[in-house]
Amino acid sequence: MRIDLSLEDFLALPDTEKVPYIGDRGILYAQQFTRADLDRYNQLADAARSLARRPEGASYLASLLRHRMALNFFVQPSSRTFMSFNAAEAMLGLNRMSVRDPAISSMSKGESLVDSIRTFISYVDLIVMRHADDDAAATAFWTATRAHRRITLPDGSQVPVPIVSGGSGTTQHPTQALLDVYTLERSLRPVGGLDGKTLLLVGDLARGRTTRSLAFLMPEFRDVRLIFAAPEQYRMGQDVRDFLDARGVLWSEVDSLDAGIREADAIYLTRIQDEHDADRSHGSHVRAEDRFRFTLDHLDRMRPHAALLHPLPKRDEVDPAVDDVQDRRVAYWRQERNGMWMRVALLARLFRVDQALLDVAATR
Amino acid sequence: MRIDLSLEDFLALPDTEKVPYIGDRGILYAQQFTRADLDRYNQLADAARSLARRPEGASYLASLLRHRMALNFFVQPSSRTFMSFNAAEAMLGLNRMSVRDPAISSMSKGESLVDSIRTFISYVDLIVMRHADDDAAATAFWTATRAHRRITLPDGSQVPVPIVSGGSGTTQHPTQALLDVYTLERSLRPVGGLDGKTLLLVGDLARGRTTRSLAFLMPEFRDVRLIFAAPEQYRMGQDVRDFLDARGVLWSEVDSLDAGIREADAIYLTRIQDEHDADRSHGSHVRAEDRFRFTLDHLDRMRPHAALLHPLPKRDEVDPAVDDVQDRRVAYWRQERNGMWMRVALLARLFRVDQALLDVAATR
Amino acid sequence: MRIDLSLEDFLALPDTEKVPYIGDRGILYAQQFTRADLDRYNQLADAARSLARRPEGASYLASLLRHRMALNFFVQPSSRTFMSFNAAEAMLGLNRMSVRDPAISSMSKGESLVDSIRTFISYVDLIVMRHADDDAAATAFWTATRAHRRITLPDGSQVPVPIVSGGSGTTQHPTQALLDVYTLERSLRPVGGLDGKTLLLVGDLARGRTTRSLAFLMPEFRDVRLIFAAPEQYRMGQDVRDFLDARGVLWSEVDSLDAGIREADAIYLTRIQDEHDADRSHGSHVRAEDRFRFTLDHLDRMRPHAALLHPLPKRDEVDPAVDDVQDRRVAYWRQERNGMWMRVALLARLFRVDQALLDVAATR
Repeated sequence: MRIDLSLEDFLALPDTEKVPYIGDRGILYAQQFTRADLDRYNQLADAARSLARRPEGASYLASLLRHRMALNFFVQPSSRTFMSFNAAEAMLGLNRMSVRDPAISSMSKGESLVDSIRTFISYVDLIVMRHADDDAAATAFWTATRAHRRITLPDGSQVPVPIVSGGSGTTQHPTQALLDVYTLERSLRPVGGLDGKTLLLVGDLARGRTTRSLAFLMPEFRDVRLIFAAPEQYRMGQDVRDFLDARGVLWSEVDSLDAGIREADAIYLTRIQDEHDADRSHGSHVRAEDRFRFTLDHLDRMRPHAALLHPLPKRDEVDPAVDDVQDRRVAYWRQERNGMWMRVALLARLFRVDQALLDVAATR
Repeated sequence: MRIDLSLEDFLALPDTEKVPYIGDRGILYAQQFTRADLDRYNQLADAARSLARRPEGASYLASLLRHRMALNFFVQPSSRTFMSFNAAEAMLGLNRMSVRDPAISSMSKGESLVDSIRTFISYVDLIVMRHADDDAAATAFWTATRAHRRITLPDGSQVPVPIVSGGSGTTQHPTQALLDVYTLERSLRPVGGLDGKTLLLVGDLARGRTTRSLAFLMPEFRDVRLIFAAPEQYRMGQDVRDFLDARGVLWSEVDSLDAGIREADAIYLTRIQDEHDADRSHGSHVRAEDRFRFTLDHLDRMRPHAALLHPLPKRDEVDPAVDDVQDRRVAYWRQERNGMWMRVALLARLFRVDQALLDVAATR
Repeated sequence: MRIDLSLEDFLALPDTEKVPYIGDRGILYAQQFTRADLDRYNQLADAARSLARRPEGASYLASLLRHRMALNFFVQPSSRTFMSFNAAEAMLGLNRMSVRDPAISSMSKGESLVDSIRTFISYVDLIVMRHADDDAAATAFWTATRAHRRITLPDGSQVPVPIVSGGSGTTQHPTQALLDVYTLERSLRPVGGLDGKTLLLVGDLARGRTTRSLAFLMPEFRDVRLIFAAPEQYRMGQDVRDFLDARGVLWSEVDSLDAGIREADAIYLTRIQDEHDADRSHGSHVRAEDRFRFTLDHLDRMRPHAALLHPLPKRDEVDPAVDDVQDRRVAYWRQERNGMWMRVALLARLFRVDQALLDVAATR
């Protein structure tokens, strides 16, 4: 339960080598999840959704983590992830507080991240965090394992305060990957789910932590093929391509959305992540190139069973007219709400009330 | 339930023509309320106040909207409206979250207001919003009607996520108008209520959205007369004067508080809204002219049954000595707390638990 | 219940002369607490801690202040105090809201602190506040006693909305003093508690409101001796030294941590409070001098039963290696969590549910 490496040594490990230290005590990297995990999360999300439909079910959910306190520590801008975690926590009965601006916290007095996390752990039973540093979530996890504070799970075991990454630096957004897989599996259920399908990933793949995290999960599925369509300067990172090669996941690159659309069972659009551009003038944004923009015409070319995803927020890479079409294939608003159910699922599992939730859902 | 106009066409309608689209599914304009509505809200506010006095009543109130989630989306400064909505929501058992700074939301990544609202709707069952744009609340309402997400009311009907304006641009503050009417009716109850009375509105009537919204409600009362006392550059807008003329509400203009005080059954003071002055230097404020300032002397000249209201915050337009007088006619602190009860009332009605609330209050 | 002095006259009183006006209706100054109070708070904190260990106990705690609303009004940076109050409030079932940035409140429209407090009182049943002005908490307390709004305690008495200072200006941090005494008493329990012991206070004693508040409590203990170790420019204030002299508390000054460590039963470290330096360049911090820094070597020189406290956040005045030692004497992380239990205790007492809490804890 205590990581016996120094912080420096722990952070120096490649992410995949950090995974064994994490086990099921935190959610930091998409690489943590096996196919069995993913299936379990999807099942839990379905069960939570169905329970919440009726007042008795909602009351049951709200009793599961009553008397626990969550901290949502989000020091990068966020609407969706922040709000969907808040909604999921409230649904499970958790008390909530948030820290969103380091200027109003003790970090402004020169406190280290390790000390801040250690302080948070004194008062809360869960930390969900979004941070600009790639290492922030791992630092928090290391700190939690070394603090004295333990929480007691329903089976009586004593564990460190769990850490959930809601996005760390430019590299990972593991809970987004879970909700994306959930949305893909649900949308493609009529054609047998995600196994054997082709995904077209479009846009800023270099800095899109959502597409990176999603790609890391693909080896868990049978015969999934990836097509990357990104401007030259935003190509999918070499580390992801090596990861896929090493695991036999087929991938290819094309130079436009059009070049991949007819083969795709799902299209995953992303925005140019220009918030990482140091020289961006305030309020201005990089425009998407036309060959990576999705318009009404593309709906005609999409396969009839295919799904259109986007992690949102979107800008000009999607024609606003697409929002107004009544077309079941436009999945991104459903995807957004799926995020809330998935976060209920993963919190239930982290606190080991997942089996209870499934059992009760099965009898209703 | 879905507005079949484009956003542009909907926004282009005069507010009174937007009203039929809104029905009872949102609170955006004072013009929405009929006298029957106002009487109903006042009755509900009284019932909520009386229930909350005892623990069983408070527990009953807190059970009414349990498991619902409210978003308080306030991107303009606010204390009173923000806090009284929060208090009202908590009283009804709603879970709450807030967005107060667009810089920490996805709007900083270039997301449109329509997309932001659509996102919020994915996670919450109610949006209360304050925004600097005149069109913001109407845009949110339009978006809610066109999103897939529906909430289920106690009678089983499925409706869009309701939108409540807590102040939009310089034009409207409809829930303030409700609490002002409630305060006027309660204060004037010993002399037969608001019908047939004379109101003196003082201060910045051009940009005072509270006095504008209040004026829009006056045709619902019998023989109410309005006196406007404003500096030349802050006169009541032509649109309001035309509205009153078209409905036969008598109004006149005077050039000082003193010129109207002896006739007034209620005096409604307002502050110079210099936050709308683009050239105001930071931290400085426009001083009120003496002839529009309320001092201890004015208390002597007020009618014995009259009420002194102010939407607050106040500055130098009220002599601080007035706060310290024990005089029942100084109503603005009661008015403030009335805002909380009125917001309980309107939320209860929006979610159709109003009749249940009245029934239970009647038996206690 | 109503302070019949003007605000100016009340603020002009020395703090010890304000104490009789406060009684048990607010927590503003360490000088308010007698030994009997301190013992009672410690007993309550122990009882709350023990109740919270089991779900039935946690449910009982959460029923005590259900339907009450707390405002956490923190306009200075804070993590620990803010979070531990939030956690304590949630534990007792209070609803919570917070104001952290005056720019988003009506203060940005020129509202006075008195009016802001009066507004807050309209909506909430408790104000916990941290403010940069020495007089802010006293101003709030005066305002609360003069407002009409009263809350009803379990015995039926009607009292003003209570005010709790979470740190006011540079002078006082009374709830920190309570948790420090609690930590000292618990840590020194094996050697008979705090009576008769020697405390070494180290660092910025001039502007350390924690050490000032703690010193004010020492006359309540029998034969406690204080040693001050501070750089010349940060010596303990003359007012505190006079206070101690007048009450026969022995104190001395030394010029390094080393010069006092062998006699100390407890060491209380503090950080240079450079946030009060007007000329500090943004993000830079004053380094602690070596002779006031605590390192691993000092652990060897500490007495075997002694305790090392720090109000946190810490910077370079504590070698980070000290955090990693498994040594029971390093008490500051326990001290931090004690703050939450102490805040449960003081809120329980403020709302007069303290005896009920003790009675229930005794039967479990």
